[in-house]
Amino acid sequence: MNGGLTRRERITPRPIGVAYRTDEENVMRIEVYAEYTEALDGIEKLTHINVLYWMHRSTENGRGKLKVHPRGNMDRPLTGVFATRSPVRPNPIGLTRVELSKREGNVLFVRGLTA
Amino acid sequence: MNGGLTRRERITPRPIGVAYRTDEENVMRIEVYAEYTEALDGIEKLTHINVLYWMHRSTENGRGKLKVHPRGNMDRPLTGVFATRSPVRPNPIGLTRVELSKREGNVLFVRGLTA
Repeated sequence: MNGGLTRRERITPRPIGVAYRTDEENVMRIEVYAEYTEALDGIEKLTHINVLYWMHRSTENGRGKLKVHPRGNMDRPLTGVFATRSPVRPNPIGLTRVELSKREGNVLFVRGLTA
Repeated sequence: MNGGLTRRERITPRPIGVAYRTDEENVMRIEVYAEYTEALDGIEKLTHINVLYWMHRSTENGRGKLKVHPRGNMDRPLTGVFATRSPVRPNPIGLTRVELSKREGNVLFVRGLTA
């Protein structure tokens, strides 16, 4: 969403890190690229953070799909993807609010990320 | 964030609409492009929605800034942008949770969007 942005303008996000699973269930390790470490200063004061991530495993094909059965449950009626959390959507952007357990330099440990 | 995404991979969002102010304070009109109208079906059942938007007025220059005084208040210490909601950040992506007042076809009226 972007008041005034024309369709020809480009949205050009830069990856700022990578999220990994850990051995501990429900805990993810987010490695922010070293050059952005300073941008984390103060984050340790927060108990929860919002994480946006690009679901790069979503197929190009999925981006054209406008309706899904929520949670893949065929008993539920076809619903517009913007009314769901489906990863199948025009922009496969994930959004999750997670508990920030620990920061170690450029690395965050969070609880609850399901990416 | 994106487990397994390499830095060379591109993140390629597509604008799906534009947000406009209205005469009513605090109410925004979001016009979703017509070809995505169907993706809204069912959204009228939700009371609140998350809106992500690209803050296209942020300068390229601002994207290199890693610390800010929160809310531009010089009395507050320099803080990493990831610990703030500053629009100055590597990715000028806004995130706001708003009340969905009304849907009319491809148009949403929401309350609380400050974009």
